[in-house]
Amino acid sequence: MDIVKMEALLRLSSTLLLVLTACLVGFDTQTKVIFLSTVRKATFRDLNALMALVCIDSVAAAYNLLQLLRCFVSCSFKANQMQSYLCLAWVCFLLDQATVYLVVATNSAALAASFLAITGASNLQWMKLCDKYTRFCIQIGGALLCGYAASLSLALISILSGYSLFRLYSPKRFFLLKAR
Amino acid sequence: MDIVKMEALLRLSSTLLLVLTACLVGFDTQTKVIFLSTVRKATFRDLNALMALVCIDSVAAAYNLLQLLRCFVSCSFKANQMQSYLCLAWVCFLLDQATVYLVVATNSAALAASFLAITGASNLQWMKLCDKYTRFCIQIGGALLCGYAASLSLALISILSGYSLFRLYSPKRFFLLKAR
Repeated sequence: MDIVKMEALLRLSSTLLLVLTACLVGFDTQTKVIFLSTVRKATFRDLNALMALVCIDSVAAAYNLLQLLRCFVSCSFKANQMQSYLCLAWVCFLLDQATVYLVVATNSAALAASFLAITGASNLQWMKLCDKYTRFCIQIGGALLCGYAASLSLALISILSGYSLFRLYSPKRFFLLKAR
Repeated sequence: MDIVKMEALLRLSSTLLLVLTACLVGFDTQTKVIFLSTVRKATFRDLNALMALVCIDSVAAAYNLLQLLRCFVSCSFKANQMQSYLCLAWVCFLLDQATVYLVVATNSAALAASFLAITGASNLQWMKLCDKYTRFCIQIGGALLCGYAASLSLALISILSGYSLFRLYSPKRFFLLKAR
């Protein structure tokens, strides 16, 4: 299998998973009647961590879509200009690294906040919420699973872009390009 | 600067930062008299995310200490057995990747939980706690800063171990080792 095809496939799957995560969290609402006429609506806006998840995942999906376009362009691009190819490979590598760390971090932040909604924290007098908003919490759980699948896919992309970059360097001298 | 020396320096600094983070969180306590005789003690055990941070950071510090020893051994090790060197490089690369993602994830989970302790979540009736336990919260904040410094150092290590591994491969053929 060609490296560009593999990258395109991974980027496509991570874009889809990131969009799915953002949609599952963003459109998740549940309304409950608490007292006689008091209606409470649970949305992702109740927790900062879930809002961050929707924003970061949307940005990461847009970035991966742009990179997917670059994959199609670079299929027809002959890498005869070594210097510009190297520059592009470094930029892609660093952006991919930043994306995967950001997505892993926001996913874990959302997981921690959601975990508190399931268990509560009795010492801090924070009460459980998922026994009331069960359907809401199950949808968030599904979204977090998607988010971790997207993180795995992004981690594989960052390994692949590291491979594309570092194989250009010499195995003997430090940070010297190898003869082609 | 030699690549092994650079790696050793990064591993030493990340080990120290991880130990510092775990100690700052683990030994952070604050006692408050709430009513006439009711005494409440805040510790890292109140939040699961902080407990996870102490555990994961300790394990990651131990792993980096082992890798630091390997750095000193590999200084005197002649890499004439290509196959075993490649195998070791792959194992180190994958373990480094796993470590950095775990540390970033637990740090962000702890950050999310601590952020809730600062702001509260009025919609969920979770109250603020950091106005009562101010010194406790400031120490946790310092620990999280150390944790992110450690994450940065671990990310650099994972780039370096990717570089050491992938520069062994040919720039033209997919996953073919280059002639030495």
